[in-house]
Amino acid sequence: MVCTIEITEKPTLNDPILIEGLPGIGFVANIAALHLINEFNAKRFATIVSASFQDFAVTTEGGGTRSPVNELYYVKLGDGCRDLIIWFGNTQALTTFGQYELCGKVLDLVGELGCRFVVSIGGFKKDQVPAVPGLYTAATDQESLKAALDLGTKIMVGHVFGIAGLVIGLARLRSVKGFALLVDTLGMYPDANATRCALAALCKFLSLDVDLSKLDASAEETKKILDSFGLIRNLGEEKKKEEQQMRWFI
Amino acid sequence: MVCTIEITEKPTLNDPILIEGLPGIGFVANIAALHLINEFNAKRFATIVSASFQDFAVTTEGGGTRSPVNELYYVKLGDGCRDLIIWFGNTQALTTFGQYELCGKVLDLVGELGCRFVVSIGGFKKDQVPAVPGLYTAATDQESLKAALDLGTKIMVGHVFGIAGLVIGLARLRSVKGFALLVDTLGMYPDANATRCALAALCKFLSLDVDLSKLDASAEETKKILDSFGLIRNLGEEKKKEEQQMRWFI
Amino acid sequence: MVCTIEITEKPTLNDPILIEGLPGIGFVANIAALHLINEFNAKRFATIVSASFQDFAVTTEGGGTRSPVNELYYVKLGDGCRDLIIWFGNTQALTTFGQYELCGKVLDLVGELGCRFVVSIGGFKKDQVPAVPGLYTAATDQESLKAALDLGTKIMVGHVFGIAGLVIGLARLRSVKGFALLVDTLGMYPDANATRCALAALCKFLSLDVDLSKLDASAEETKKILDSFGLIRNLGEEKKKEEQQMRWFI
Amino acid sequence: MVCTIEITEKPTLNDPILIEGLPGIGFVANIAALHLINEFNAKRFATIVSASFQDFAVTTEGGGTRSPVNELYYVKLGDGCRDLIIWFGNTQALTTFGQYELCGKVLDLVGELGCRFVVSIGGFKKDQVPAVPGLYTAATDQESLKAALDLGTKIMVGHVFGIAGLVIGLARLRSVKGFALLVDTLGMYPDANATRCALAALCKFLSLDVDLSKLDASAEETKKILDSFGLIRNLGEEKKKEEQQMRWFI
Repeated sequence: MVCTIEITEKPTLNDPILIEGLPGIGFVANIAALHLINEFNAKRFATIVSASFQDFAVTTEGGGTRSPVNELYYVKLGDGCRDLIIWFGNTQALTTFGQYELCGKVLDLVGELGCRFVVSIGGFKKDQVPAVPGLYTAATDQESLKAALDLGTKIMVGHVFGIAGLVIGLARLRSVKGFALLVDTLGMYPDANATRCALAALCKFLSLDVDLSKLDASAEETKKILDSFGLIRNLGEEKKKEEQQMRWFI
Repeated sequence: MVCTIEITEKPTLNDPILIEGLPGIGFVANIAALHLINEFNAKRFATIVSASFQDFAVTTEGGGTRSPVNELYYVKLGDGCRDLIIWFGNTQALTTFGQYELCGKVLDLVGELGCRFVVSIGGFKKDQVPAVPGLYTAATDQESLKAALDLGTKIMVGHVFGIAGLVIGLARLRSVKGFALLVDTLGMYPDANATRCALAALCKFLSLDVDLSKLDASAEETKKILDSFGLIRNLGEEKKKEEQQMRWFI
Repeated sequence: MVCTIEITEKPTLNDPILIEGLPGIGFVANIAALHLINEFNAKRFATIVSASFQDFAVTTEGGGTRSPVNELYYVKLGDGCRDLIIWFGNTQALTTFGQYELCGKVLDLVGELGCRFVVSIGGFKKDQVPAVPGLYTAATDQESLKAALDLGTKIMVGHVFGIAGLVIGLARLRSVKGFALLVDTLGMYPDANATRCALAALCKFLSLDVDLSKLDASAEETKKILDSFGLIRNLGEEKKKEEQQMRWFI
Repeated sequence: MVCTIEITEKPTLNDPILIEGLPGIGFVANIAALHLINEFNAKRFATIVSASFQDFAVTTEGGGTRSPVNELYYVKLGDGCRDLIIWFGNTQALTTFGQYELCGKVLDLVGELGCRFVVSIGGFKKDQVPAVPGLYTAATDQESLKAALDLGTKIMVGHVFGIAGLVIGLARLRSVKGFALLVDTLGMYPDANATRCALAALCKFLSLDVDLSKLDASAEETKKILDSFGLIRNLGEEKKKEEQQMRWFI
């Protein structure tokens, strides 16, 4: 019971791309992932529980319970297109140790499914954000960097914290390619506008035609899930909890 | 020596129900579990020690020592009734990591014994409590929810912290069913009154006739045990210890 | 590299008694253990390094280095006497987790050597100490308690922190017998006087005739070792370091 | 995914000496290691990632990413000379536990390659440093101490923190010999001058003729790498981050 993955199906995928979509700054990745899952009716094939997640259950309006989990979904696009693996969840791990473990396990599993390319999504916290938020990138290699820059991104300067950075860094060490897609956000709430920009760039990269009209609904759904986990509230509040617990928000 | 379970007997049980009864808010679960153990003369079959418990020994009045432990007891009810497994102890784990490990180990073991249903008990901390404390629930599934609501509970809104929540969440992820039974309490001392309400509901669910007349004695015994571990005292005092150590009380 | 024991010899011992002598309050156990090692010319047979010790090396006057270690020594007493295993070291583990791991490993190893009895030694911190410090005990069972009380000890009331308590508690859970021997001390420096009392009682229990005339030298040697590890200094100073690092002193 | 070493080559080496060169006080070891790697065109044969490193990626000016890693390089010197293994990296582990694990893994691996001698390099933080900084040492044994003193070092008094101390201490416990080479430094920036002194002594010990004319460039390169990891900045700033994160700088 450290970091366990329950695999319900081992799909056969065509050169799949992993899209990281865990909650983080502005919840950009999380909304984007949820939207893709909804739009493509993606199928869940793995559930991940880590002893580095928080130890509680969250109640739902209907009397059910939710636990901190990560999940992997796949989308078969057919027509010779590269398939998608979407890494979704309602939490990152609470400790550095847990983050490495989680990320390593996911890369192991998707590697077994033939995944050699990773795109992580994240918010880039700013005090002010232009009407059209800027996009930034950092990549594992020159070729991936060029692909990301061609989407209208600029080179990121600084650190990419949390899973969004870690997955790209660990991918590079495994000779898996990829890039991070970071978008300007105030970071204070689930940011549908920033997500729209990031998702547009991602879809351009994937040559996918995704209907973004229901993105606000995805943002609302994300807000609701994360709200129930106390994540949204915490962003607005003074940081009362110990920093470590919320460290992956910074 | 991370989390070790010493099993002294592997009982053959009839479709057993796990009842979680570790110390928590108002010590409701703890008193309830002790009372059931006493009333049914439950038999201990497993002792659990975790490196995530506190590293001390507690002395008893008679010169003996007690250590932080968890224990599993069983009750065979016969007559085609479902048997009981009671999860008792004088502590929860001090870290998130330890909580997951502890909970995972217990679910593994009771799973081997055929347990497919879990009831966790807990206090729901309030500043004021009515004469007849309210009961709340959150469940793994609709059927279990209905069973819990039929006992007079309302749907819980919010988080269920600690083992009481974790065990229900992890059960659901293992397709084990169950519900949490939470009762209004001031949470400041071992609350016999709140326990009486929770236990009455539990016994109704289990179709058990339990004598609650000695419940005050069980509460007193619980108080004594926990007092010797410094747990009661700490509730009344200012929180001087670091939050993590006492985190599962919140 | 979590907690590794290098065993240089597996001695054949006659019903050996483990004597715990790690640094703690007043360094009573540490001085006592060192004195027994010196007086009986005890032989080291195991060296323990834990990732929960501090990560530094300490220099010696002569340009050498010392690391945080624990060691096990044995003394064969012959004449049908029970042999001794002495658990000595310059540190306890820095975390609860490390304490359990360390204690578990030592109990495993001495158990393999046939040890079924443990005596832990410790200081009982007081603001004022009588000329003849009081002795206190807590035991795993009635028989051991009686043996300890017969040495002039009183029943301890309260917690026995750190390894001195943990080893007795874990011993009891393994059905190994024993008692803690705690002595009044101001706890501010290596307390030769308190050690003399504890050691006199221990020797009475072991029916050993130990020359205590060189005890001050043992205290001085202990002081020197611990001083080089910054342990003595820290006791006199304000607690500047985070509590966890020094937690086993409390 | 705790502490993983990816080994790309298992070189056959002649009685190799391990030179520890991780970032620490004054970044002396780090500059020295980088300079040796550059001058000897050392070949990387192992990459180490630990879950105790920080969980982020750092961007490079060109849009690439760097992760916290440690690396092992080898230098074959031929002519019957002892070969070199250089332990380089952009971080130490963030926790005591991680430090022990990292150090143990490296000693295991270099032990397999026949390494029986370790030199660690470090800065000795002073408020004032003479024009020719003093050199200090602590050794595993008398013979190694003599070798170090012959290089013009004095005996170190005090603690050797972090990997520089730990590796010597753990080496001694494994009967691997070696010494620490510590040099006066203000410790506030990558100190080329201090490194020059340490490297001159090291080269004298290794009977190596190393061109130190480009040392300032190595210091500059080190500064750039560490700057991107936020390490340099932190030294100049007030310690805002929690002590544990930067603990190996002290």
